[in-house]
Amino acid sequence: MQILSGKEVAAHVRGHLKKDIEQIVAKGRRPPGLAVVLVGDDSASQVYVGSKIKACKEAGVQSFEYRLPKNATYLDIQKVLKECIDNDQVDGILVQLPLPPGINTDEVIALIPPEKDADCLTAGNLGRLFKNQHVIAPCTPSGVMEILKYYKHSLEGLNAVVVGRSQIVGLPMAQLMIQANATVTVAHSKTKDLKSLLQKADVVVVAAGRPKFLGRDFFKKDAIVIDVGIHRDENKKLCGDVNTEGLSKSSYSVRWCGADDDCDVVT
Amino acid sequence: MQILSGKEVAAHVRGHLKKDIEQIVAKGRRPPGLAVVLVGDDSASQVYVGSKIKACKEAGVQSFEYRLPKNATYLDIQKVLKECIDNDQVDGILVQLPLPPGINTDEVIALIPPEKDADCLTAGNLGRLFKNQHVIAPCTPSGVMEILKYYKHSLEGLNAVVVGRSQIVGLPMAQLMIQANATVTVAHSKTKDLKSLLQKADVVVVAAGRPKFLGRDFFKKDAIVIDVGIHRDENKKLCGDVNTEGLSKSSYSVRWCGADDDCDVVT
Repeated sequence: MQILSGKEVAAHVRGHLKKDIEQIVAKGRRPPGLAVVLVGDDSASQVYVGSKIKACKEAGVQSFEYRLPKNATYLDIQKVLKECIDNDQVDGILVQLPLPPGINTDEVIALIPPEKDADCLTAGNLGRLFKNQHVIAPCTPSGVMEILKYYKHSLEGLNAVVVGRSQIVGLPMAQLMIQANATVTVAHSKTKDLKSLLQKADVVVVAAGRPKFLGRDFFKKDAIVIDVGIHRDENKKLCGDVNTEGLSKSSYSVRWCGADDDCDVVT
Repeated sequence: MQILSGKEVAAHVRGHLKKDIEQIVAKGRRPPGLAVVLVGDDSASQVYVGSKIKACKEAGVQSFEYRLPKNATYLDIQKVLKECIDNDQVDGILVQLPLPPGINTDEVIALIPPEKDADCLTAGNLGRLFKNQHVIAPCTPSGVMEILKYYKHSLEGLNAVVVGRSQIVGLPMAQLMIQANATVTVAHSKTKDLKSLLQKADVVVVAAGRPKFLGRDFFKKDAIVIDVGIHRDENKKLCGDVNTEGLSKSSYSVRWCGADDDCDVVT
């Protein structure tokens, strides 16, 4: 198994970004600003938000953190979002999902203006992505494309499979790979014989949300496997949707990137 | 070859629609209204617009036809669209594409309010389609789904291939089939070995825009092939992207629907 290090790609991207921002600031302009809105106390969301704030600091991006209690109302969230929208130091807004039950997520997302929609959550920006118009693509699929770019894996003409059909990962992932000229198959829980489908794939992006459910026998030799699943296993250790034990012991030269202590995905 | 008759499906759908509309009108309410906007003198577009107006008449839908010369400006189109938007007898607006060169199509489409966007042309509605939100899906992919529904072909668990990745047909077609639980592959001009990909497909939707480029050897026995391509061949006869000569003579029981005099697609 060859490891495609998400950490290495993230450090590379942030290093470039830091230099660009330093140049902008040296010219007397303000650094870019990202507002992160977290509602409630979901533990995974708290980790994500913490990582985002940390990544902003490393790159020289100004971050604005808004934390609301889990019993916050739509009007409370609207008020915070208005503040982000009116703040001309904020270029992008990230509303951390999921929102607590009782809050209509679509109504909240519709409040984000497209030009400040940092995670392509709004219907308009998602539509622009599928129209091949210039838009900030969703973070996770963009991270996967960065990993492939960093390791100089061109997708042109390759057979790619995306496992998962979520609005935030699976579907935009497929679209970005179609734009990069891969032949893309979207597989999901109703797919029959996933194993034989994956065994023919040159590139597999796994975003199924099921811990360790794909083993080494699912991938062909030299396949590129990018696992965006992130879970805690029975020993509280980070794991993905792919069971890497078999992979690392195998003679297969699968090129793998996923969640463990050495190799987290780009965020 | 078993023919899936697009004409039969269209007649069935329009028959039902006609009854529904008659009931609405009997209750004293107005019939639904569709505005069709044609700019320029593209011959194919004139045929399409003619068919749409005819289909409206058959179903009892009130149609509003706007024809503008090919030298119409953005402001001319905007004026007509404003009339359609303000007219409360118009429920849906169809802007016939392509628009003449010199007109920015995206700017014109952005004028259509989402609630009157009858062909899912706006970015917001296309995004809602990929978010699984309720939206009027684009006409051609919706027609294909109607054909499959009429012939009681459930897509659940089937391997489907869409040939073509356009915003108006290929990509939303893939999404509608993913929603119907098919495992969907999007193939296109950069796909390597299209033949072996198609030979494994249970369902193929061809929207490549290349006359007669797929022959009988591309499909497996019992495959369902829906060809939305529409062209004139060297004898000025309607044809699709599939060369049906081989298909009709073969012992293959391919279930086919496409453009010829007996079997046009639902519009």
